Amino acid sequence: MPRFRMVVEYDGTAYVGWQRQDNGHSVQSAIEKAILKLTGETVSIRGAGRTDSGVHARGQVVHADLSREWLPHKLRNAVNAHLMMANEAVSIVEVMAVDDTFDARFSALKRHYLYRILNRPAPLALEKNRAWWVAKELDHEAMHAAAQMLVGHHDFTTFRSTHCQAKNPVRTLDRLDVTRVGDLIEIRASAQSFLHNQIRSFAGTLKIAGEGKVTPDDVRKALEARDRRECGPVAPPEGLYFMKVEYPGDPCYQDGT
Amino acid sequence: MPRFRMVVEYDGTAYVGWQRQDNGHSVQSAIEKAILKLTGETVSIRGAGRTDSGVHARGQVVHADLSREWLPHKLRNAVNAHLMMANEAVSIVEVMAVDDTFDARFSALKRHYLYRILNRPAPLALEKNRAWWVAKELDHEAMHAAAQMLVGHHDFTTFRSTHCQAKNPVRTLDRLDVTRVGDLIEIRASAQSFLHNQIRSFAGTLKIAGEGKVTPDDVRKALEARDRRECGPVAPPEGLYFMKVEYPGDPCYQDGT
Repeated sequence: MPRFRMVVEYDGTAYVGWQRQDNGHSVQSAIEKAILKLTGETVSIRGAGRTDSGVHARGQVVHADLSREWLPHKLRNAVNAHLMMANEAVSIVEVMAVDDTFDARFSALKRHYLYRILNRPAPLALEKNRAWWVAKELDHEAMHAAAQMLVGHHDFTTFRSTHCQAKNPVRTLDRLDVTRVGDLIEIRASAQSFLHNQIRSFAGTLKIAGEGKVTPDDVRKALEARDRRECGPVAPPEGLYFMKVEYPGDPCYQDGT
Repeated sequence: MPRFRMVVEYDGTAYVGWQRQDNGHSVQSAIEKAILKLTGETVSIRGAGRTDSGVHARGQVVHADLSREWLPHKLRNAVNAHLMMANEAVSIVEVMAVDDTFDARFSALKRHYLYRILNRPAPLALEKNRAWWVAKELDHEAMHAAAQMLVGHHDFTTFRSTHCQAKNPVRTLDRLDVTRVGDLIEIRASAQSFLHNQIRSFAGTLKIAGEGKVTPDDVRKALEARDRRECGPVAPPEGLYFMKVEYPGDPCYQDGT
């Protein structure tokens, strides 16, 4: 069967998350329903990452097997037409034909996430559900210094959900950068793969580092403790964006920004 | 009575527009109700510009007269607390105490607007209601060239709503720049004041210039015709943002970006 790779953007606010679930409408089921309407086929698509309810994506990647060939741009437009008709906050940004060795989840070489904090006294209006509002001023340089304690090959037990299903808590974090432009603090995280709630756990701990409540050394000790109780607060989902996934043979490296 | 100048951000999607109206909830009434809850006073606030339903603001400016003195940041926080309790998509970003010669509307020296077009084949998910989606590729350089025909001191009858209440259709347009970064085309407009639907009329005409349907010379002729029927389509409200207002004595000029 022809296999297609799709880059997907979504506003996660109104969904139970990426994954199909019994308790509500997921992004995955929105796309599967659009394909069902289009082709009459009940497909099961696979995503590169399982985002939680409220988490957004600019570059989630999925693959889907369909019964017939499509011109990629025609498939993109047709699936989008059905998503729009159903008033979904999901858009297929790009479609490529791929061979059946491609797997959105297992072929991924690198995943890029962005966590956005709006750091200002005034609550959010235009950015509501699009960023974490933190009123108290944060020191982004202190946040960046703390973040560097987490980069590298570590056991991230402290920074994953107690519900995380991964057998192995060891991951290699390639990048965790904190920058600020005006009121907007951006945390960029890159790794081949992440644990459940890992980036939101990082963001919550970096926030209290930005408040001066913990030092980079405290963060290093929390990591080394390999104990979930040493983690700071978990940051809310609305600040998190799944930005980009890289695969073997992609034309050139980009940093997911 | 002490007078306060407030900078206001809002998501215009769910409002009938800036102005208090009988037919629905306006941004103005949202703020007036928050002040009523806070101080018990029925105030009538004045805004620098009357935005239509669906139009957003990052820097609308209002003034309000209250019966007692407030520390500006305390007034900001207290009004915001009431706006949040009422679940309004409105936030008071800044408050300053001003003397009673200050008038948000009549003292304004320059107003800055931004019109955002997302120019890509895929429909909008994260930017839904935040930009005009144009699927067909636009030539932003052709748009910019056409825009330059409109800059200057002109009778803008062609580019204002037939419902515009201004007596005089002559305005001085200081700036109308079109730039592109990736899929995002931004139109930046600055003038002391604008006519009703003027920027959305510009944006609609520039869009067809970007499609190659009209030339800069056609746009010049449409302007010179002083005839509303010569205007292109009026762009939808969701792309428009009221960015900034400048007043005498403000510390330094900024370009509203």
